[in-house]
Amino acid sequence: MALFDLPLAQLRDYRLDRPEPSGFDEFWDGTLATARRLALPPKLHEVRTPLSGITTYDVTFTGYAGQPIRAWLNRPSGVAGPLPVAVEFIGYGGGRGLPIDWLIWASAGYAHLVMDTRGQGGSWRAGDTPDPDEHGAGPSTPGFLTRGVLSPETFYYRRLITDAVRAVETAAELPGVDASRLVVTGRSQGGALALAAGGLAPDRVSAVVSGVPFLCDIRRAVTITDSNPFHEVVRFLRANPLAAERTLDTLDHVDAVHFARRITAPAILSAALMDDVCPPSGAFAAYHAIPGDNKHIEVYEWDGHEGGRSWFDVTALEFVDDRLS
Amino acid sequence: MALFDLPLAQLRDYRLDRPEPSGFDEFWDGTLATARRLALPPKLHEVRTPLSGITTYDVTFTGYAGQPIRAWLNRPSGVAGPLPVAVEFIGYGGGRGLPIDWLIWASAGYAHLVMDTRGQGGSWRAGDTPDPDEHGAGPSTPGFLTRGVLSPETFYYRRLITDAVRAVETAAELPGVDASRLVVTGRSQGGALALAAGGLAPDRVSAVVSGVPFLCDIRRAVTITDSNPFHEVVRFLRANPLAAERTLDTLDHVDAVHFARRITAPAILSAALMDDVCPPSGAFAAYHAIPGDNKHIEVYEWDGHEGGRSWFDVTALEFVDDRLS
Amino acid sequence: MALFDLPLAQLRDYRLDRPEPSGFDEFWDGTLATARRLALPPKLHEVRTPLSGITTYDVTFTGYAGQPIRAWLNRPSGVAGPLPVAVEFIGYGGGRGLPIDWLIWASAGYAHLVMDTRGQGGSWRAGDTPDPDEHGAGPSTPGFLTRGVLSPETFYYRRLITDAVRAVETAAELPGVDASRLVVTGRSQGGALALAAGGLAPDRVSAVVSGVPFLCDIRRAVTITDSNPFHEVVRFLRANPLAAERTLDTLDHVDAVHFARRITAPAILSAALMDDVCPPSGAFAAYHAIPGDNKHIEVYEWDGHEGGRSWFDVTALEFVDDRLS
Amino acid sequence: MALFDLPLAQLRDYRLDRPEPSGFDEFWDGTLATARRLALPPKLHEVRTPLSGITTYDVTFTGYAGQPIRAWLNRPSGVAGPLPVAVEFIGYGGGRGLPIDWLIWASAGYAHLVMDTRGQGGSWRAGDTPDPDEHGAGPSTPGFLTRGVLSPETFYYRRLITDAVRAVETAAELPGVDASRLVVTGRSQGGALALAAGGLAPDRVSAVVSGVPFLCDIRRAVTITDSNPFHEVVRFLRANPLAAERTLDTLDHVDAVHFARRITAPAILSAALMDDVCPPSGAFAAYHAIPGDNKHIEVYEWDGHEGGRSWFDVTALEFVDDRLS
Amino acid sequence: MALFDLPLAQLRDYRLDRPEPSGFDEFWDGTLATARRLALPPKLHEVRTPLSGITTYDVTFTGYAGQPIRAWLNRPSGVAGPLPVAVEFIGYGGGRGLPIDWLIWASAGYAHLVMDTRGQGGSWRAGDTPDPDEHGAGPSTPGFLTRGVLSPETFYYRRLITDAVRAVETAAELPGVDASRLVVTGRSQGGALALAAGGLAPDRVSAVVSGVPFLCDIRRAVTITDSNPFHEVVRFLRANPLAAERTLDTLDHVDAVHFARRITAPAILSAALMDDVCPPSGAFAAYHAIPGDNKHIEVYEWDGHEGGRSWFDVTALEFVDDRLS
Amino acid sequence: MALFDLPLAQLRDYRLDRPEPSGFDEFWDGTLATARRLALPPKLHEVRTPLSGITTYDVTFTGYAGQPIRAWLNRPSGVAGPLPVAVEFIGYGGGRGLPIDWLIWASAGYAHLVMDTRGQGGSWRAGDTPDPDEHGAGPSTPGFLTRGVLSPETFYYRRLITDAVRAVETAAELPGVDASRLVVTGRSQGGALALAAGGLAPDRVSAVVSGVPFLCDIRRAVTITDSNPFHEVVRFLRANPLAAERTLDTLDHVDAVHFARRITAPAILSAALMDDVCPPSGAFAAYHAIPGDNKHIEVYEWDGHEGGRSWFDVTALEFVDDRLS
Repeated sequence: MALFDLPLAQLRDYRLDRPEPSGFDEFWDGTLATARRLALPPKLHEVRTPLSGITTYDVTFTGYAGQPIRAWLNRPSGVAGPLPVAVEFIGYGGGRGLPIDWLIWASAGYAHLVMDTRGQGGSWRAGDTPDPDEHGAGPSTPGFLTRGVLSPETFYYRRLITDAVRAVETAAELPGVDASRLVVTGRSQGGALALAAGGLAPDRVSAVVSGVPFLCDIRRAVTITDSNPFHEVVRFLRANPLAAERTLDTLDHVDAVHFARRITAPAILSAALMDDVCPPSGAFAAYHAIPGDNKHIEVYEWDGHEGGRSWFDVTALEFVDDRLS
Repeated sequence: MALFDLPLAQLRDYRLDRPEPSGFDEFWDGTLATARRLALPPKLHEVRTPLSGITTYDVTFTGYAGQPIRAWLNRPSGVAGPLPVAVEFIGYGGGRGLPIDWLIWASAGYAHLVMDTRGQGGSWRAGDTPDPDEHGAGPSTPGFLTRGVLSPETFYYRRLITDAVRAVETAAELPGVDASRLVVTGRSQGGALALAAGGLAPDRVSAVVSGVPFLCDIRRAVTITDSNPFHEVVRFLRANPLAAERTLDTLDHVDAVHFARRITAPAILSAALMDDVCPPSGAFAAYHAIPGDNKHIEVYEWDGHEGGRSWFDVTALEFVDDRLS
Repeated sequence: MALFDLPLAQLRDYRLDRPEPSGFDEFWDGTLATARRLALPPKLHEVRTPLSGITTYDVTFTGYAGQPIRAWLNRPSGVAGPLPVAVEFIGYGGGRGLPIDWLIWASAGYAHLVMDTRGQGGSWRAGDTPDPDEHGAGPSTPGFLTRGVLSPETFYYRRLITDAVRAVETAAELPGVDASRLVVTGRSQGGALALAAGGLAPDRVSAVVSGVPFLCDIRRAVTITDSNPFHEVVRFLRANPLAAERTLDTLDHVDAVHFARRITAPAILSAALMDDVCPPSGAFAAYHAIPGDNKHIEVYEWDGHEGGRSWFDVTALEFVDDRLS
Repeated sequence: MALFDLPLAQLRDYRLDRPEPSGFDEFWDGTLATARRLALPPKLHEVRTPLSGITTYDVTFTGYAGQPIRAWLNRPSGVAGPLPVAVEFIGYGGGRGLPIDWLIWASAGYAHLVMDTRGQGGSWRAGDTPDPDEHGAGPSTPGFLTRGVLSPETFYYRRLITDAVRAVETAAELPGVDASRLVVTGRSQGGALALAAGGLAPDRVSAVVSGVPFLCDIRRAVTITDSNPFHEVVRFLRANPLAAERTLDTLDHVDAVHFARRITAPAILSAALMDDVCPPSGAFAAYHAIPGDNKHIEVYEWDGHEGGRSWFDVTALEFVDDRLS
Repeated sequence: MALFDLPLAQLRDYRLDRPEPSGFDEFWDGTLATARRLALPPKLHEVRTPLSGITTYDVTFTGYAGQPIRAWLNRPSGVAGPLPVAVEFIGYGGGRGLPIDWLIWASAGYAHLVMDTRGQGGSWRAGDTPDPDEHGAGPSTPGFLTRGVLSPETFYYRRLITDAVRAVETAAELPGVDASRLVVTGRSQGGALALAAGGLAPDRVSAVVSGVPFLCDIRRAVTITDSNPFHEVVRFLRANPLAAERTLDTLDHVDAVHFARRITAPAILSAALMDDVCPPSGAFAAYHAIPGDNKHIEVYEWDGHEGGRSWFDVTALEFVDDRLS
Repeated sequence: MALFDLPLAQLRDYRLDRPEPSGFDEFWDGTLATARRLALPPKLHEVRTPLSGITTYDVTFTGYAGQPIRAWLNRPSGVAGPLPVAVEFIGYGGGRGLPIDWLIWASAGYAHLVMDTRGQGGSWRAGDTPDPDEHGAGPSTPGFLTRGVLSPETFYYRRLITDAVRAVETAAELPGVDASRLVVTGRSQGGALALAAGGLAPDRVSAVVSGVPFLCDIRRAVTITDSNPFHEVVRFLRANPLAAERTLDTLDHVDAVHFARRITAPAILSAALMDDVCPPSGAFAAYHAIPGDNKHIEVYEWDGHEGGRSWFDVTALEFVDDRLS
C-alpha cells in the first residue's frame, strides 16, 4: 500500500492527545489483583523435539481469573546458570505453534517463554489454550477484536492482557532465570501485549521490544484502514450503530498508548510507513507516550506489516543486549 | 460463480452415503434433556415500533443449558384468535436485528418468532444474545464454524441447535398460537437450523422451510468451495493438521443431512446451482434424506447464494399454506 | 472503505456553490408539461399474494411522454379510510420485484405505491417497465448513467425523473388516499428520485425521505470514487474525451442538489461516511440546499452504502409520522 | 485462466447438437427484407486525418429498419482501381473510434469499411451511432446482451446483426470496390457478426475471418464462465428466473453457430484455450458447423481472450489473400 | 482510479526541485562514448509481410557497449525520397512484436524505426533482443526496474537508454531519410526513452512525443502508487532496506526529468489525471523541466494509463507535422 | 483454493510417463564438468551476530561456470567434532537473507549451509549473489522462470541447478563436517533444487528433503494453475506463441521428475492438496519417480502452498535423523 498515513515528518511529532478513560488504573488494578489472588504455581514438563541444542518445556501458568494458559519455554541445552529471560507474545490469529517455531532468543542465550494466545491459534499457527467466557459477552464480528466489546469487563482483550502480565510474573519466577534481566517482546498483537505488560508490570520488565504494534490509537486506526483486524470494529459498528460510543470506550481501555505512558524500561519500537494493518501513526503515538529518552523507534519506510522482518529482530536483540548488560 | 458442483442431472440422484456418527441420538437426546430440565418460562414484553399493523414482543426464552435467548415475536395487530406460528432462524453472522426486518410471516397471518443467534449479530444485523462458554473451547478460526470444534460437547453449533429446538418448544406454548400449525423456516444457516429443529422436534413441527441450507454434507462442501463460512474449516485444519479427524467427526454431529433423516413434516427446500457458499449438493443430500414424498426442492439454476430471494418466499408460503390448511 | 471524503466537521459545512445550469426550470417545466398533456388515468387491478394482511394492486400509470409505467400498490387489508400515502423509488439496477418485497409502509398504515424503474430490473430485482427510446441516444457505457447523456433531452434520467413526478401525481389521486399526507421515499437512486420529486412537485409532497442519495454533486462524486454507477461516467469520458463538457452539462440537469433547492416539505436525509457508492459530500450538499430548518440529516459514521439499513427506516418513519400527524 | 473448457482433443470433435429454433429462417428473412425495403443509398464524405497514405470517408448507411449507421471507409491513397473490400465488425463495448485505429487492411491494399456498433462505443473506443428502440424492450442488465432479450423481435442483437448484413450489402456497392472479393472480419463480438453476415449474406461474402467469436453455443457458455458479457445473462436470469426459457430461446435466435451452418465462403476462425470471455468450445462448435472443407481454425493454446493478437491478423490476411487471388 | 495525485491546478505548477545527481553528465557522456566507440554499421534486410502498402526491414544496430539491438523499419511502399523519420520506443514489458503492429507513422509518410527493448518482450508483445549482462548485477525483484539497481553502472536502464540514443543516431543515418526531421516518440516506458533520447541527443532530435511518461520524478512516484512497475522498487526496498539510498541514487540517474532539462526540440507530452501507473505529477515535472515555450502538455482528465489512446496519436502527429514542416 | 488437482486416490498412482529429453545426461554432465573445472576453493569468514549459540560464516564458493556464489554456514557454537551437514536451497524470489533466518538445522546439531539464489533476493528476503549472463538470453516475462528459456544452454535454471550441485560438493569438503551424513533440503524452488542435487550428485547425498517441490511435471502444471511462478510460462507463451515447443523442451531439461529418477538416497517429500502454486500432482510424480522404497511422501490434505509449515520441518528432521544415524 502506498503512503496513506501521515508523512514521516508529521509522524515524528505525532502524539495522542486523548486522555485515558477515567478509572483506567482502577480497572486494571482490580483485574490484576483478582488474577493474582487466583494464581497457582506454573507447571513445567520437558518435551522431546529433534532439536538437540534447545531444551523445551511445556508450561502451564494461570492467567486471567486463574484460568490455565499454555506456553513454551525454550532454553539453550546444557547451560545451567541463571539466564536472562524473554517473554514473547504472538500476532493476531496465531497460537504458540511448535517449539521449533521459536529459536531466536534461545540461540541468543535467553530463556524464552512463548505465551499461547487464548482462543487464537485456529488460523495460521496452532494454539492450545481455551478462552473460557462464562458470562458470554454479546454479539461479535468474526474475529477477536469485538468479542465482548460492549463493556471493558467482558472484553476479550481484558483477559488476554491479564494473561500477558501474568506471563511476565511467571517468567520472573522460573528456575534458572535472572529476573533482573526480563524482556517482553512481540510484533503486531504481540507488540501491543509487550507494551501492555511493560506498562502494567513496570517493576518486572527490564526492556520492551514492540514491533509494528497493534491496538495503538485505535480510534484513529479504525478510520484510516480497511484491513483486518481493525476493520472488524467497523463491521461491528455497522451492525450495531447505537453501540458505537460504548464500543470505542471499551477499546480505549486497551489502547496500548495508555500502557506506553506507564513504561519505565528501555523500549524499542518499530513502525512501517506502508503498514495498513497497524498504521504507523499508532506506533509513533505509543513511542511518544513512553516517558524519558531511553527509547528508540526503528522506521521502515518501504514496508507494510512485515515491518522489518528479521532486520528488526537483529536490531532489537542488539538494543536489548546493550541495555541489559 | 459458474457451475462448479455436480450437474443437475446428477444432483437429482445425489445422496449422502456416510452414516451418522455413532451415539448421534444419545448425544442430542442428552443435550436436549438438559436444556429442558433447566428451562424457564419465556418472558414477553411488548415493544413500540412505528408499525401500527404489527404488534411486537421482545421475547426471552431459555435455550442451551438454560441460557437466555432473545427473540422477536411479531403478530398482526388486532387479530386475537389462535394463529399458526412460524419460527425463523437467521443466516450466518446476523442477529435478530429490528422488528421491522421481519414482516413477511405476520403479513401472511402468522405469529412469527424470530430467534436471535447467540454470539452472532456483529457483522450485518445486530444481535442481542450472548454465547456463554464456561469451559472455553480451544482455538478457533475467526468465525463461528470452528468455535469449540475439537469435540461435539464444546462445539458452538451444539448450543445453537439446542436453542433452535427450544425456540420451537417455546413457540408452541405461546398464548394465541395454534401449536398444531407450526412452521420452522430459514435460509442458509437458518435453513440448516430449520432442518435440525424439524428433525429433533418432529412432533412439534408441521412444516419445514429450508432455503439453500448450510451445514449439509459438510465433508464434501469443505473440499469444493473456497467461500466462507465453509472455508473457515479449511483454515482451521491448516493450522491444526493433527486435529483433522476430530474436527470432521464433530462436524458430523451437526451435519443437517442427519437431521433431515428424522423429519416427518412436509418440507420444502431450495438449491441454487451456482451457490458457492452452500453448494447445491448439500441441499440435495438433505432433500433425499427426508423420508417420504411430502417434500419439494425448488431449484434455481442461475442463482448463487441469494437462492431465489423473495421468489422462494412466495413459493414457500404457498407450499406451507397448502399443507397447513 | 476507510474515510475518504471530507471529514465530518467539514461535511457539516459543505455546500455546492455551482449554480444550476441555465434554463433548468424551462427544461423541466416543458418536460413535465408534455408528460401531463399525454397522461392517461391509471389502471389498477388487484393481484393475489399469500399475504392476507396486505392488499396489492398492479398499477399502470403514464410517465414520461405518456409512456406506461408499472407500480405496485400495497395497502393494509380491511382498512377503508383515506390513508396517508408513500411513493417509493428504487435503487439502481432494480425493478419493482414482487409485492412481498414492500411491506414496511403498509405495515405502518400507509398506502404504498412502489414505482418500477424503466429499463432497470435486470440485475437484482425484477422489473416490468420498458424504456422506449425512439430517437436512440448515442453510445453509452453499460449501465444507465450514460444512456443518452450527450444532451439533456435524450438523457435516460430525464425520462425516469419525469416518471417519478408522475408517480406522485398519480398517488395523490388514488382512491382511498389522503393526498394531503404524501411522502416520497427511497434510497440511493431512489433517494435521488425522492429529492427530484420533492423539488419538482412541491405542492404535492408533504415529506421527503432520501437515504444515501445518488446523483448529488455529480461533478465531485465522479472524481472521488471508483465505484459504479458513478464510475460509469468516468469510463464514458475515457472513451469520449471530446464530449466531457456536454456530458457534465447534461448531468447538471439531473443533479439532485438543484432539486433539493426547490423542496418545501420537511425532509430527512442520510449520509454514510464510508459510502464510496454515493459519497457523503453529495448528501450534505443536498441537505444544505434544502431551504428552511424543517430538515434532518442522519449520519452513519461507520457505514458504507448500506447507509443505516433498517435503522434508518425506523428513524425515517418516526420523522414522517411526527410531521404528518 | 488455466484450462477450464474441454481438452483440445475433445474440442477437435465438439459439435453443437441442438437444432436452430423453429422459424429461424423466416425470422431473419423478414427482418432483412424490411431493412432492405427501407434502405437508402449510403452517404460518404471525405475526412481529413494526419495520415497521408490513407484516404478516409465518413460513411452513413442504413441498417435495421432503415436506421442510420455510421462507418469509416479507409482506402490506400492514390490507388484508384477496384479494390478488394473488407468489412470489419467491432468487439463488445467499442465503437468505430478514429480512422487511425484501422490501418491494417488498407495497408494491405483493401478498401476497409469499419461498421460502428449501435449504442456501443461508450466504454473503450468511441462510437457515433444511436440505437433507437421505439418500443422499449423491458428490463436489462447493464450491458447489451440482455437488452430486449425477452423476445427475438425486440432483442438488441436482432438490430445489430441486421446492420452487419446491411454493411456487407453497402460495401459491395461502394465505388472503386471489387465486390467479388469481399471479406467479413472481426474478433469477439466482431467475430460473431462476421459469422452472422457470412451466413445471412452468403452470396455477397467471399471470405470470413472470425477471431475468438462471441455468441457461439450460448447456452453452454453461460454455464461455464463468470466473465462478462456472457455473465450478463446469468445476472439477468437471477433477477428474472421465470423468464429463463424465453431468454434462452431469444439467444438461440442469434447463436452464431446457426449462422455458421449457412456459410459458403472460405472461413478462418481462431480459438484460445484459456479464453474465459469466449470459451473455445463455442469457436469449435461454429467451426464444425461450417459446411465443407475450405476452412481453418487457428488454435492458441496459451492465450486468453487476446486470442493470438496480431499473429492472427497476419495468419488471417494470408488465408484471405490466398483465397481471393 | 479516482483522483489520487495533486489536483490539476497544483499540477499546473508542479516542479521537481531535487537537483540531478552529481556527475550526471560525466556518467552519460562516458557511457555514450563507449557505445559509439564500439558501434558498427546497422544491418537491414527486407522482410515479406501481407502489407503491400508498407515496406519493412529487419534492422540490427549496435546499442550499449556495442551490443546488437533489433528494430523494425517500416516505410510507405514506393516512396523513394528522403522521408522524415520517427524513432519509437515501447512500453514496459513489450518487444517490437510484428511489423503489422506499427502502421501509424508509415501511414503518415514517415520512415518509422521501432526499437526492440532488450530483455523485454516476454509479457505481451514479443521481443527479439537479448540483454547481456556480463557482470551480473545482484538481486532484483521480478521485472526490469530493479535489475542491477544497486549502482548506476550496472543498472538495466543505463543499457536501455543508451540503446535509445543509439537508435536515434542510427535512424539519422539510414538511407532515404531526412535526418533534419527526426522525431522520437513513445508512451509510458517509451515516453521516458523519448525524453531521454531528446535530452541526450539534442542535436539529432527535431521533435519529442512523450505520452504518459514513465521514470519521471521516481522518488515521489514510488510513494504514491501501488501499481507496477513503480511498485517493483518498493518490493525491492522491502527486501533490501539497507540499500535504499543507493537504489534511489541509481534511479536518480535515469529520472527522465533530468533528461527533460536538456531537451531543445519542440516537445509534446501527455498526462492522465487518474493514471496510477505513471502518476501525472511526473509528466508535469518533466514538462516544466523542458526549457523554453515550444512545448505542450495534453491533459486527459478522466483517463488512467491508457492516457488518451489514439486521440493522443492524432494530436501528437498534428503537433509534429506543424513543427517539422 | 478448493481441491483442483487429481483426487488423492488418483494422486497415489500418478506417474509422469513422458521420457526425459534426449541428451539429458550429456547436457548435465557437460555443464557440471565445466563448473568443476573452473571451481576454486570456498572462502569462509566468520561474521558477528547477536546469537551466541550459533557461529556463522559468510561463505563464497564457485557455482556455474566458476561464478562466485554466496552462502551462510551456521554451526552450533562450541561443538568441534565433525557434524552432519545440511545444504539448504531457498524458495522462489528469496535470497539467503540474514543468518538469524536459519536456525533449525544448527539447533538440531547440524552444520547448515544455506545457498544464496543467484539474481533472486529482491522480493522478500535479501540476496547477495549476482546472476551474470554474458550472452544475454532473449526476452523474458518478469520473473526467473523464462529467463533464457529459449534454449537449455541459456536458461536461468541451468545456472541455478549447477550452483546447487556445487553447493553440495562444497559442503562435503568443509572443515568439521562429516561428509557421509549430508542432507539436501528445501521447499518449493528449494525443494526442486534438493531433488536436482540429489539426482545429479547421488554419491554425495545421504538424504533428500523436498517440501512441496516446484518444477515438477511442468507441462501439466502450467495448464492447471494460474498462480505464479508457473503462470510466468503461460504469459511468456502468449507473447511468443511460435516459441512454445522450444520453451517446453527447455523446461523439460530442468523438470525435477527427471532428477528424481536418479536419486539413490532416502527421500522425504511433501504435497499439499490445495496447493495452487506447486500442484500436488507434481510432487507425486517426483515421488513415484524415485527408485526403491526408502522414501516417504507426507500429504497435507488441507494446505495450500504453506505445505505443512513447521509440522513438516519436524517430520523431515525425524526422517533424516532416523536415516543418518
